[in-house]
Amino acid sequence: MASIFSRIVAGEIPCYKVAEDEKYFAFLDISPVAKGHTLVIPKHEVDYIFDLDDEEYAGLTAFAKKVATAMRKVMPCKRIGGAVLGLEVPHTPIHLVPITRESDMNFFKEKLSLPADEMAEIARKIAEAVEY
Amino acid sequence: MASIFSRIVAGEIPCYKVAEDEKYFAFLDISPVAKGHTLVIPKHEVDYIFDLDDEEYAGLTAFAKKVATAMRKVMPCKRIGGAVLGLEVPHTPIHLVPITRESDMNFFKEKLSLPADEMAEIARKIAEAVEY
Repeated sequence: MASIFSRIVAGEIPCYKVAEDEKYFAFLDISPVAKGHTLVIPKHEVDYIFDLDDEEYAGLTAFAKKVATAMRKVMPCKRIGGAVLGLEVPHTPIHLVPITRESDMNFFKEKLSLPADEMAEIARKIAEAVEY
Repeated sequence: MASIFSRIVAGEIPCYKVAEDEKYFAFLDISPVAKGHTLVIPKHEVDYIFDLDDEEYAGLTAFAKKVATAMRKVMPCKRIGGAVLGLEVPHTPIHLVPITRESDMNFFKEKLSLPADEMAEIARKIAEAVEY
């Protein structure tokens, strides 16, 4: 069965899309640890990031850099942190999080729940700042 | 002034080295969140990972993949998680952590303190498994 992320990429499940190219896709985490928390995934479904072949792995990390650069331009933060936790959805997401304090990268605290219109506005702002 | 990591690379401060090539360096975190917790850095001192130029960024992430592959071979774990927190030492470390449970990636819990001989043995095992 397709992962929930593959169904998001296919448009079967809605998301707040941030960026997309032929091979990679980025969208807001619905349970963010900080405003603007974004997930970057390969469209090709692979469970474990280090199982990606070298080319696809390099493409994914390069795409994540583009998204992080856009996020830093438009989100109030010191910089963008990144993490691959690896035991949640079996589809290798890279988490990108706008951070001001180290604790903004604490994935084990209570998550935020933002109104839909605020999520949409954040996604729009980041999407507009992505340079392909 | 050189960062503490640059002084480690230069051999002025001792470390449990895991891997090294011309441009990149990996060593055990002295305050690990899990056994085998490793830091991967570029020798070239840059504060923020996404400020690395595309080539050096790609080289760093590729080097991290090699180290992670070695870690997974020799450390008891499900897989290797990765994180760039970005507000600690101003020298862009990528944290690689052998994880069995998600909470093994919790950087905000109390750190481990392992005996020197155990740290040395872990570093030796990972170092022997790295394929350049």
